[in-house]
Amino acid sequence: MYRSLLIIIGFVFLGNLVAQDPLELNWTVSYEDENAPGNLLIAEATVPGAIQLDIAKNEGYGPYYYGENWKDYLWMEDREFVYVSNFIKPSMKEGERLVFRSLGIDYEFEIIFNGKKLLSQEGMFTPVRLDLTNLLWVNNELRIRVFPIPKKDSESADRNQAAASVKPAVSYGWDWHPRLVPSGIWDDTWLEILPESHLDEVSVQYTLNEDLTKAFIRVETAGKNLTACNISWSLADSSGSKVDMGYLKSYNDKGVLLTELVNPELWWPHDHGEPYLYTYTLELADQSGLTLQTYGGHLGFRMVKLVMNEGAWAEPKGFPKTRSVAPIQLEINGLKIFCKGSNWVNPEIFPGIISKERYEELLDLALEANFNMLRVWGGGIVNKESFYDLCDRKGILVWQEFPLACNNYKSTQEYLMVLKQEAESIVKRIRFHPSLAMWSGGNELFNAWSGMTDQSFAIRLLNALCLELDPYTPFISTSPLMGMGHGHYVFRDQETGDEVYETMMRAHNTAYTEFGMPGPSPVEILETIIPEEELWPPQAGTSWESHHAYNAWVGDTWLMKDMIEDYFGRATHLEELVEMGQLLQSEGYKAIYEEARRQKPYCSMALNWCYNEPWPTAANNSIINWPSLPKPAFYAVRDACRPVLASARNYKLTWRRDEPFSTQLWILNDRYQTLESGVVKATLIAGKKVLDLGSWEFGRVESNSNLEGPVLKAILPRWKSDGFILHLEVLGHPEYRSEYMFLFSD
Amino acid sequence: MYRSLLIIIGFVFLGNLVAQDPLELNWTVSYEDENAPGNLLIAEATVPGAIQLDIAKNEGYGPYYYGENWKDYLWMEDREFVYVSNFIKPSMKEGERLVFRSLGIDYEFEIIFNGKKLLSQEGMFTPVRLDLTNLLWVNNELRIRVFPIPKKDSESADRNQAAASVKPAVSYGWDWHPRLVPSGIWDDTWLEILPESHLDEVSVQYTLNEDLTKAFIRVETAGKNLTACNISWSLADSSGSKVDMGYLKSYNDKGVLLTELVNPELWWPHDHGEPYLYTYTLELADQSGLTLQTYGGHLGFRMVKLVMNEGAWAEPKGFPKTRSVAPIQLEINGLKIFCKGSNWVNPEIFPGIISKERYEELLDLALEANFNMLRVWGGGIVNKESFYDLCDRKGILVWQEFPLACNNYKSTQEYLMVLKQEAESIVKRIRFHPSLAMWSGGNELFNAWSGMTDQSFAIRLLNALCLELDPYTPFISTSPLMGMGHGHYVFRDQETGDEVYETMMRAHNTAYTEFGMPGPSPVEILETIIPEEELWPPQAGTSWESHHAYNAWVGDTWLMKDMIEDYFGRATHLEELVEMGQLLQSEGYKAIYEEARRQKPYCSMALNWCYNEPWPTAANNSIINWPSLPKPAFYAVRDACRPVLASARNYKLTWRRDEPFSTQLWILNDRYQTLESGVVKATLIAGKKVLDLGSWEFGRVESNSNLEGPVLKAILPRWKSDGFILHLEVLGHPEYRSEYMFLFSD
Repeated sequence: MYRSLLIIIGFVFLGNLVAQDPLELNWTVSYEDENAPGNLLIAEATVPGAIQLDIAKNEGYGPYYYGENWKDYLWMEDREFVYVSNFIKPSMKEGERLVFRSLGIDYEFEIIFNGKKLLSQEGMFTPVRLDLTNLLWVNNELRIRVFPIPKKDSESADRNQAAASVKPAVSYGWDWHPRLVPSGIWDDTWLEILPESHLDEVSVQYTLNEDLTKAFIRVETAGKNLTACNISWSLADSSGSKVDMGYLKSYNDKGVLLTELVNPELWWPHDHGEPYLYTYTLELADQSGLTLQTYGGHLGFRMVKLVMNEGAWAEPKGFPKTRSVAPIQLEINGLKIFCKGSNWVNPEIFPGIISKERYEELLDLALEANFNMLRVWGGGIVNKESFYDLCDRKGILVWQEFPLACNNYKSTQEYLMVLKQEAESIVKRIRFHPSLAMWSGGNELFNAWSGMTDQSFAIRLLNALCLELDPYTPFISTSPLMGMGHGHYVFRDQETGDEVYETMMRAHNTAYTEFGMPGPSPVEILETIIPEEELWPPQAGTSWESHHAYNAWVGDTWLMKDMIEDYFGRATHLEELVEMGQLLQSEGYKAIYEEARRQKPYCSMALNWCYNEPWPTAANNSIINWPSLPKPAFYAVRDACRPVLASARNYKLTWRRDEPFSTQLWILNDRYQTLESGVVKATLIAGKKVLDLGSWEFGRVESNSNLEGPVLKAILPRWKSDGFILHLEVLGHPEYRSEYMFLFSD
Repeated sequence: MYRSLLIIIGFVFLGNLVAQDPLELNWTVSYEDENAPGNLLIAEATVPGAIQLDIAKNEGYGPYYYGENWKDYLWMEDREFVYVSNFIKPSMKEGERLVFRSLGIDYEFEIIFNGKKLLSQEGMFTPVRLDLTNLLWVNNELRIRVFPIPKKDSESADRNQAAASVKPAVSYGWDWHPRLVPSGIWDDTWLEILPESHLDEVSVQYTLNEDLTKAFIRVETAGKNLTACNISWSLADSSGSKVDMGYLKSYNDKGVLLTELVNPELWWPHDHGEPYLYTYTLELADQSGLTLQTYGGHLGFRMVKLVMNEGAWAEPKGFPKTRSVAPIQLEINGLKIFCKGSNWVNPEIFPGIISKERYEELLDLALEANFNMLRVWGGGIVNKESFYDLCDRKGILVWQEFPLACNNYKSTQEYLMVLKQEAESIVKRIRFHPSLAMWSGGNELFNAWSGMTDQSFAIRLLNALCLELDPYTPFISTSPLMGMGHGHYVFRDQETGDEVYETMMRAHNTAYTEFGMPGPSPVEILETIIPEEELWPPQAGTSWESHHAYNAWVGDTWLMKDMIEDYFGRATHLEELVEMGQLLQSEGYKAIYEEARRQKPYCSMALNWCYNEPWPTAANNSIINWPSLPKPAFYAVRDACRPVLASARNYKLTWRRDEPFSTQLWILNDRYQTLESGVVKATLIAGKKVLDLGSWEFGRVESNSNLEGPVLKAILPRWKSDGFILHLEVLGHPEYRSEYMFLFSD
């Protein structure tokens, strides 16, 4: 049944083969002197990288993240730049081809080889592949002319300028990202020599039958001069044993093989099993058996669906009756998974300098945080291949958005053509990854500040395209959809005064796919970004503001000094302010993640805003500071996301001495395992003072289920401390322990 | 901009030419004797028609709408039938072709000509076109083998059986439709002789620029042996004057012409302007100038959009924030239109017997009812061409659903392939009609009783298909979408006791696209469907129940004798019960239509459930009895839908004498015209007794706007009547007068 749909919908194949023996190129970038128009300057270029960084280095600019240095880069936005690479013709055998390849050039550009224009392209996600052979001289010149960054006409200098292009909107300025717009070659770029007979494209797709006992694999290739060649296929399990072999049938330089794997090992997100990967090898050989090309990749078999959230069909009640909510319960291989995770943003302002190592560092932290999902937010880039490879290997689910965010992307011919081209390139590259759990049209498109709707051509186009190219991966138009929630982003609402505890208890959402809690960055980071004389006290209009401590969103976001001091009292020095702010962030995040989990099974996801950051902010909702430094809140979130824990539903942060304190006990269990009965002991602690709140003898906790416990109450003692801790201990299970902080009011 | 999108998305063309000189065929239908298997019987067949009717006539069955006669037809569901037509080869010139054409055969069938199987098809909406020329003998036999009606496996005998086919679900049984499933040739079917050089397909599509000053017209044809032919095009305005002429460019038997019309007269729904139509003529001529074929059609130029309902972007408020509602404000040629209308259901159980005259009768009543929109509900058929032609001419907007309703249509290969074929045929036929205002995937698919979601392949496929084939007509996945409301369907909720006034005042929906109010049918109809001995008193388990008076939906729907008598007291005879029930229906509908209008501009539509009915029910939400007989409620609805009226927001039906009565006055104005200031006078009347409630001097009423007036109050007198009337009179404007009925409680 599933295999067949591919045929109905239309099967289009691709996949980009990556280089085998790349020839490195040296690059320069030439630009007009900022202060002397007409005067051409030449900088050494790092590829992949960013033109802005090459020029900054050439000009001797200070670090872009220090003080107000980011403003030095603004003049580059409207300029044109030219990359140049000169190379001597490599030695090549008769019939061999020299091909120029780039996995990404940002954003609008032309490629000229030995004076001849070979390509004009708009779009950073569509790879470039140019056969240079017929134009080769002994000394060759490759030029890439990069046009000014795209700006929608007559808009103010903010993210609105990105509404007519498929360039990620974030770098036009966001509440945690400076106005600093990169351009240039941002992904691997090289020359390669191909044998006369060679493959250009490989596609390996599979579908699973409904009971997951058979994988139907479809291998397709396209190449040149293949009539006298054989293409062999083999598939090996994780121990290296071959489990399937065969030869492709060729016709007109295209090859195809349909094969089946019975009882495949399934790929699972790390917290529910092994992210099992098979590896395949495709070998192109000539008639004598000589291997001409070898390509390999991995395959993970999993079935992913979005199904209705439990209990959601019973709503809405009464008449007139509107529709039920959009489903957002992820099901992997038939198991409903509660998704815990975060919103991933570009780990660098300049995507060209993101390395596999940086990805790995951050993804290892995601594992440590007990996260099983990352939402790759639509304001940023679609990541490089190594990101998805690592997610495949580590068992982290990826929610991938297209590069649309918080804008009304228009229905012009120009925009839709580029969107279609870019989206096709994105889908065809990423659909093979087992970590890919869902596509989304982009961020907050169906809210007032964006103004798009279900009628918008861009969204209908993306939906149709995903249906055609990747039908078995769910597609949602945007986040939030009906029933899903974004926000809140502060500990206490500045208008209503409601604290996070109250807001979340009242909330009834199928998924919390964005929620924030700001925290200041550690002092050692602040010292590297804010000039000493501005450091204390923090003030708007200084580098603090440039780094998003003031006037970033509403009110005093994101530093929120007033709110911090309202809770904790006046801070006398920077270290103290940071410590208090980080405490508030930790407690706030814990409250949201755990309440979202308590709302399971109706609720199916908790993803905070945001995970990481693209540069060192002064204060931010992120739980990891740039580049990869966990904040205290990271550890609070990690604990709130443990598969099993004792959890308390709390009501407020600040209590009066003598006031009756109360809290409700829960056991949260996301494991597909039953927990034995046990005892939770609750105590209030302040230094050496301890008050026994009581205990709860709980029964069996069902697999992937929570257990709601009693509300415990006690009159608060007249302790002299500033606050106290609620401590939950599960006897015999120290790993389920939880703690919550409260303050005493005066 | 608009013209270009067609090219991006991919332009696919068709359009079915209708016969010029059809040759009539005589048909029989053969079937196995119900009581003597193996014994073949032959009935005369009416084409178009229905096999069930042919057999009933042959067997001498009584009328299918009388008593329980519909049960006589059940045995036919699982049988196979064969249409046979014998004809003598017509005289034909050298090179001419004899073509068999049918616009619709229901549902799964094979066509065999002179012993050779030419076609197997599933689907009643895809027309058939078979060239018989090469198989012609002197005496010819055409057979159409019609298979049993499709039934999804192992489901009970109800609409669920329709969930694996594209056969309209309604005839499998609904709360107002008996179980009576038609099959056979249901639309025009004929033989035609085509010249050697001929056109097979014509497509005339246009797009308008944003300021509606230019229509870009694209004419395409496909045919055979056209190398030596010319195809001319001309367009005439409504007076017959030619406004555009030209010749198509031909290539490989395909022809194309791109032309522009400057400042076209626009097509409008009847209540906002003239439904202006141009006519075009395409003429195929040979080199000597001799006309071989002439085809004509009409074109209406309008731009239709779904835009956000006014005020809806301001919602939702607070955090966590979900998305804003789906837009359902229709905009025609840049004007926001409040859509008043109804849900259209099949006017006959057997679509084959629906005639153009029947359509016209019902559509003229829609004009009389001040309706500007009909929702062609997804449980029924997609209508025959004459329906849409008439809507074009009369200026009635059509909301067209695909044939999916209240089922979870599965993602099997078989179903999706047929759905795609049928939906393509439907879109390619209807997209040319200016009356077509929107597509919808079907009825109530995203509610619990259906169980489909945004992830369902069928819906994604329909969305993608409409984007490809008819991008400029809005598509919605289903009704209701988020924010839209279906229901209530009774005067007083049987659980909560809330009356329609209260339910509607509390409701906050962007569009009320279904709401019902049951009313009994007139006695003269009841007498034709219910045996005399069952007529009084009405009882469940009799022909009353078969005709939906009992156990149709919940409680005593649709007769609701208990509720009627609870309001009006015990009925002593049938005439009295009918009269009281029809009064309740009238008042209920008035309350909903007018409250929906008062909620403009947030609310943008009021379409009741339902307009007409496919057979004579005993009680139903319809406002027109089968075949075309308006109920009293029809006139109440007509008045509530006047473009301008004085309206009262009322609170309940039954009042005590001496109780303080209150009502709020409004002026409702759907015209794009300002109303001058004036005076509304309100009085309560019972027979000759009159109580002056006061008057309201209102100011200017803005174009397409309502004006909210004062709440008027008075202590109710101790009148002895059973009830009283609230009468609103606008001085100098008798046409704006309104009346509402109330009852006194004892």
